[in-house]
Amino acid sequence: MSIRLLTASAVALGLVAFAPVANAQDAATVDQAIVVRDAAMRSNIAMDYVTQLTTGFGARPAGSRSEQQAAAWAADYLRANGFQNVRIEEFPLVGWERGESSAAIVGDNAQALVAAALGHSPATPRNGVEAEIVRFSTFEDLQAAPDAAVRGKIVYVDLGQMHPMQDGSGYGPQTRVRGAGPGVAAAKGASAFVMRSVGSDEDRMPHTGTTRYVDGKPTIPAFALAAPDADQVSRLVALGQPVRMRLTSTARTYRTTSQNVIGDLPGATRPDEIIVLGSHMDSWDLGTGAIDDGAGGAITVAAAKAIADSGRRPARTLRVIFYGSEEVSQPTPQTGNGGAVYARGQGAALDKHIIAGESDFGADRVYALRLPAGAQGSDFQKAATRVLYPIGVLASDRVETEGGVDVGPMGPLGVPFFGLAQDGTRYFDLHHTANDTLDKIDPAQLNQNVAAWAGLLWLIADSDVDFRAMKPTAPMAR
Amino acid sequence: MSIRLLTASAVALGLVAFAPVANAQDAATVDQAIVVRDAAMRSNIAMDYVTQLTTGFGARPAGSRSEQQAAAWAADYLRANGFQNVRIEEFPLVGWERGESSAAIVGDNAQALVAAALGHSPATPRNGVEAEIVRFSTFEDLQAAPDAAVRGKIVYVDLGQMHPMQDGSGYGPQTRVRGAGPGVAAAKGASAFVMRSVGSDEDRMPHTGTTRYVDGKPTIPAFALAAPDADQVSRLVALGQPVRMRLTSTARTYRTTSQNVIGDLPGATRPDEIIVLGSHMDSWDLGTGAIDDGAGGAITVAAAKAIADSGRRPARTLRVIFYGSEEVSQPTPQTGNGGAVYARGQGAALDKHIIAGESDFGADRVYALRLPAGAQGSDFQKAATRVLYPIGVLASDRVETEGGVDVGPMGPLGVPFFGLAQDGTRYFDLHHTANDTLDKIDPAQLNQNVAAWAGLLWLIADSDVDFRAMKPTAPMAR
Repeated sequence: MSIRLLTASAVALGLVAFAPVANAQDAATVDQAIVVRDAAMRSNIAMDYVTQLTTGFGARPAGSRSEQQAAAWAADYLRANGFQNVRIEEFPLVGWERGESSAAIVGDNAQALVAAALGHSPATPRNGVEAEIVRFSTFEDLQAAPDAAVRGKIVYVDLGQMHPMQDGSGYGPQTRVRGAGPGVAAAKGASAFVMRSVGSDEDRMPHTGTTRYVDGKPTIPAFALAAPDADQVSRLVALGQPVRMRLTSTARTYRTTSQNVIGDLPGATRPDEIIVLGSHMDSWDLGTGAIDDGAGGAITVAAAKAIADSGRRPARTLRVIFYGSEEVSQPTPQTGNGGAVYARGQGAALDKHIIAGESDFGADRVYALRLPAGAQGSDFQKAATRVLYPIGVLASDRVETEGGVDVGPMGPLGVPFFGLAQDGTRYFDLHHTANDTLDKIDPAQLNQNVAAWAGLLWLIADSDVDFRAMKPTAPMAR
Repeated sequence: MSIRLLTASAVALGLVAFAPVANAQDAATVDQAIVVRDAAMRSNIAMDYVTQLTTGFGARPAGSRSEQQAAAWAADYLRANGFQNVRIEEFPLVGWERGESSAAIVGDNAQALVAAALGHSPATPRNGVEAEIVRFSTFEDLQAAPDAAVRGKIVYVDLGQMHPMQDGSGYGPQTRVRGAGPGVAAAKGASAFVMRSVGSDEDRMPHTGTTRYVDGKPTIPAFALAAPDADQVSRLVALGQPVRMRLTSTARTYRTTSQNVIGDLPGATRPDEIIVLGSHMDSWDLGTGAIDDGAGGAITVAAAKAIADSGRRPARTLRVIFYGSEEVSQPTPQTGNGGAVYARGQGAALDKHIIAGESDFGADRVYALRLPAGAQGSDFQKAATRVLYPIGVLASDRVETEGGVDVGPMGPLGVPFFGLAQDGTRYFDLHHTANDTLDKIDPAQLNQNVAAWAGLLWLIADSDVDFRAMKPTAPMAR
């Protein structure tokens, strides 16, 4: 208690510049982190932010008018909440618009299917594509198929349902199909590509997501079927008769701009030292981007605001960034997604970026803290555990190496990452679907996120912890 | 045991015509009902039927080609499973096709909404309807509104979310709005009608359903918003600024035919005495009609088949009817839904209809047996309880007076009804949405339904129980 009182007195006497440099594990720093954490848990900023954002602007596809309007609104929101140096960093982008699309079985067993075109997949010819389908149950089978088995057909890949996992680890193998599948099918002469949605639900909701260009160009029209429709098609294929499908899409790309929105809470004594709190402003077009990623913006802005409202300003600067175009950017030599644009633009200033974290995995509770390799077993990790364990967050032996799509581009440039891992068990029920709407956010779990971020950030921001200088003191796992 | 042995011997000796008339409560009848019940629980007929139906034909709107094809298939299915006198009873119908539709907020807060036109609501003009909305939170408020408050506007009624109830009792007040709301709004000069979907889910899935003609004519374009979209619109209205909406629909009606599919398991000794097992073949166009009402057909045909396969044929005839056009029929002097057509067509034969039951509330477990008023407290009810209690079905003090939409028209003509009440807690999450698909059926619960139907039907069919002659022997509740 005495140390805390001393620090408080120093602030009160205007002696901040002479205050001793704090260690993150100092009792006073930990105590204040707990105060901030508990205040954050009671805050209503996060729910307010994500309610206003999703209600006011609905879906915010990268480069769309609604993403641009939402960015302008968010800048105002930051200013109104006391953030400083609020700015919008604009960049060029190839946008993608879904237009109209349809999918159906034709001929025997004719029936409509519920499907969504994959992001950046090209339009079909005006009259659509109609062909027999050829089904693959693994990506490797598609890769190994002779061209003659695929040419002129609609390739259908059904890996089976993605399993829900707390850490979302079922996602990777399936997104490989989404990203690369259309290109592989196109190279073999397929007329179109269809896959089971990457998702863990059994709702009649297709999951969209970006598919990759090959050699900088779109490939063939590509679609994701809702899970019940994937089941249906696979049952019909199992009957052993040919299944014909008809697909239409009027999707198009266009030149536009997106933008990062940046606002700072300047540090009291070392404002050039930056901690980045990242999330993204854009969303897929089908939902309103509540869990992906309105929630991330809500969590990070509310955590910073809880610190600003704590009555004490930490030593270092907290920088909130609402990145643009996380979802559908197709990087070209001239453009990139918001994360790449920000990292490139910072140049040497990245040396003073202490650490970066990203919230982009929904709004369900945080269960684990992941730190850079050097912090494993450190006193900092122990201090963080004292702050986070009481709200259900354990230190993970999994090292945070990637950060996420938005902050990730700073990694190769030397910026360390932390991660506050969220429960993703139901995330992929909703992810990239029309069902990503405000009502899916549990306010109590959202605020647990805000509390975890605020408590951890206080430890980092009001101390001189240097993750770059840390060396592992305990055996690293994984 | 001795009575059962005697009966079995009588059958074995070809003395069926001279077998003593059984009472439903005879120990032998009860014992055989239990045997049939348990065999039904292990049957795979129900899951087989509903899988083939929904996979082969998808959605089956009343009067559509797919309903007609499904009916022809179902007749073959009955024949292949040993039903006799299988016939198709065709009748004229005004069908309704959804076409294309869209809903969006325009102007401030512009964004797409997820909505579905209500059945039999007319198309919008080619360029759609665009107007400010006026919101009502009760039907009575709409009725009381002065014309001037409504004229030229889009009426929006949001009663709030329907609550899930085991017996589905939250449904009625909401369907009143769906049926009568558009007519009330049209009479006041509204340009279109929008309501919160009648459903208990928070999925981005609108619930369709029929709206009523006024004076035999369609009224104004009418739509149901998905729950998250209803939330969204109501939040925007609460901000106090005008909200403008744009609606388009190319819905149309057309003259077509629908049909009832009827098959009998003739009774061994009194084949002119009929027990009707009802469900409907048509479905809404958005889903594939698995729970509404493929499951009902599956349960009834599987129950009858379990009895046919028991090695003994009951005294009375079991009649399975897959009714046509339960969902969207707009009765005219010339047409009606399948239930009305069947009842009219039977004439005096209805006097020999012992009882009728209908399965049209999904595929979740049966929890209560409801009987005609006279059977309350009867020995028959006690016998039925002995058969049904072990599989979780209790005798209800609620009298079955309506039967359901399909068998209901026989009620005023003197036919008694039974009801096997199903757990409807999650029924209205899925009802009339795209999400009504095969995967929503729990095979174990489906088979519990089959077992309950089979056990109860044996008691009725192999006895001389006469519900018309029964008088209440216990105080009636409700």
